[in-house]
Amino acid sequence: MSAAANGATREERVLDIVQRTRSRPARFRDAQITMSHGAGGKASQSLIEGLLLPALCNDALAALGDAGTVALDGAALAISTDSFVVTPIRFPGGSIGELAVNGTVNDVAVSGARPLAITLSLVLEEGLSSSELREEIDAVARAAQAAGVQVIAGDTKVVERGHADAMYACTTGLGVIDPRARLSPAGLRPGDHILLSGSVGEHGMAVMLARNEFSLEADIRSDTRSLWPAADALLAAAGRDLHCMRDPTRGGVASALNELARASGMSALIREADVPVDAAVAGAAELLGIDPLYVANEGKLLAFVAPGRAGAALAALRAVPGCEQAADIGEVAQEPPGMVLVDTAFGGRRVLDLLAGDPLPRIC
Amino acid sequence: MSAAANGATREERVLDIVQRTRSRPARFRDAQITMSHGAGGKASQSLIEGLLLPALCNDALAALGDAGTVALDGAALAISTDSFVVTPIRFPGGSIGELAVNGTVNDVAVSGARPLAITLSLVLEEGLSSSELREEIDAVARAAQAAGVQVIAGDTKVVERGHADAMYACTTGLGVIDPRARLSPAGLRPGDHILLSGSVGEHGMAVMLARNEFSLEADIRSDTRSLWPAADALLAAAGRDLHCMRDPTRGGVASALNELARASGMSALIREADVPVDAAVAGAAELLGIDPLYVANEGKLLAFVAPGRAGAALAALRAVPGCEQAADIGEVAQEPPGMVLVDTAFGGRRVLDLLAGDPLPRIC
Repeated sequence: MSAAANGATREERVLDIVQRTRSRPARFRDAQITMSHGAGGKASQSLIEGLLLPALCNDALAALGDAGTVALDGAALAISTDSFVVTPIRFPGGSIGELAVNGTVNDVAVSGARPLAITLSLVLEEGLSSSELREEIDAVARAAQAAGVQVIAGDTKVVERGHADAMYACTTGLGVIDPRARLSPAGLRPGDHILLSGSVGEHGMAVMLARNEFSLEADIRSDTRSLWPAADALLAAAGRDLHCMRDPTRGGVASALNELARASGMSALIREADVPVDAAVAGAAELLGIDPLYVANEGKLLAFVAPGRAGAALAALRAVPGCEQAADIGEVAQEPPGMVLVDTAFGGRRVLDLLAGDPLPRIC
Repeated sequence: MSAAANGATREERVLDIVQRTRSRPARFRDAQITMSHGAGGKASQSLIEGLLLPALCNDALAALGDAGTVALDGAALAISTDSFVVTPIRFPGGSIGELAVNGTVNDVAVSGARPLAITLSLVLEEGLSSSELREEIDAVARAAQAAGVQVIAGDTKVVERGHADAMYACTTGLGVIDPRARLSPAGLRPGDHILLSGSVGEHGMAVMLARNEFSLEADIRSDTRSLWPAADALLAAAGRDLHCMRDPTRGGVASALNELARASGMSALIREADVPVDAAVAGAAELLGIDPLYVANEGKLLAFVAPGRAGAALAALRAVPGCEQAADIGEVAQEPPGMVLVDTAFGGRRVLDLLAGDPLPRIC
């Protein structure tokens, strides 16, 4: 029974989510919030499935997509919201203002919706220098212009010195679902090719190195950018054969694939050797003992395409500026349901699980 | 020249805002952000007009309404966003979860739009107890149900202990503009009656007293509630004769009237004796040396109605639960432009200016 059926009780609706995910929902048993609840891994999943969804249950949330949807006369809208608490607020390749625009625009774009507008709500720390604020507002304006969205509403709050770190930003994005798009985790089919729009791990690694906690210097810049051009190219090339898209932000490609495997009941098999990783990122990741597949991206997407159109979709993707390194990295299978497997560069096969803990806190 | 004219440069568009407000825009010259930039008074105005608007300039923002608007095929949407940083997170009559729903729903409602959906983005402090979080999520769910909106998208971030205070919440609300509504500060006309939907100052005073910083006990509860029923009743009773609505939150009735006077180039004259103030609020305000007209409300609206329909509008408002004390508190005039005057209970007349500083920080 669909959760949309009239007269369904809250319990039936929750049960429906369970059945749709084809696995037991994570329970939330922790006594306190820890950093790992914000990391996009196992603890985040238990918070969302065990506490937030049952309390706020409705179809849009239950679909667990990157954006909620609203149907109006004549138009279907995608809406997504995100808070940004990245520290430091400036890092090679970007800053919180740019990230706040692109992060939300991208959640809308991978839902198959052309981003139209965003709202911007700031929590500023008392004592923040006006020049730093001005730089971030200018960064918001530039990123919004580049992404083709207007900032249509805003809010500003100030908290005392020591509360909030310079600034937090919350953006909500609004887009109109493209008529070519029929995207959903439930659309994944065995045999679908998994495309990745470029090299992984740059954003998370750039922010980590900007903290100067490691005696490590490397020329790594955040990949923050709008993904609508990539999404648009894929919709044009693959149409209804494009089954799903997702931007692998917090928790990286590994977490995004796990979420989709869980939501679809399918499995994903990745060929590690085919995943593009910049040499500097690979080197830094090895020194820090972090798998680049778990490191956040802010300008990359995963696309799931029926085998017959995968080649054309990959070619279209590679023609988009910033996606020249796009690659076919694996495929969807029926077994084992809900899991992600990776064929390693050394010829082995291992499970790529959800993150436990939070090796890279405050990355976005 | 309208800012919507094609080919207008950014400078022309900024100039247009200036002309529309019929007064010089506030300049932003402060070197640092202070608490007063978040108080909704003079410093907030200079931040918005001097920094945010020029950088992010577009028509929706320039209108300075409580919500931005987006026109789609067949529907006009109102969208509003707000961050909530109230401390403590629970207070008599409400809590941050309820506030985050109603505050945003009300910004949509006073724009003349029926609230449909909200998004919820949380910044949680590491160490927050799960039971406190659960209570707030339940409060969000209850308030959303009472307001008739669904929570359609969400996000959760966690920051280290000591950063953020228990939790911050950012909500964005979406509504469909009611076909009966033609509301805007520019719609204010000399002679319009100013209606207030009930007694003022309860929310701000309840939060202040909940901090236990004053040895003052009083039975004051926040007035947080959805204002759509009140807005709906006014639209039904006054139609196009309802010229503008505004919810007087941060900075209270005085700040909301000043914003509207400035945006419309009109003046507002208020009769202090006609403004309903609960006796406990009046007593606490007097002891703390704060004018209740500057204290935040979270369940009250101001409505500007043409004289011929003001009586019917007031009667309709008083029939709405929670608005029994609604009153006609003054009227709009042409002179002096951009100012708010108050006839005091003692027979004098004084200027009711924008707040300087922030006597009531972190109230929402």
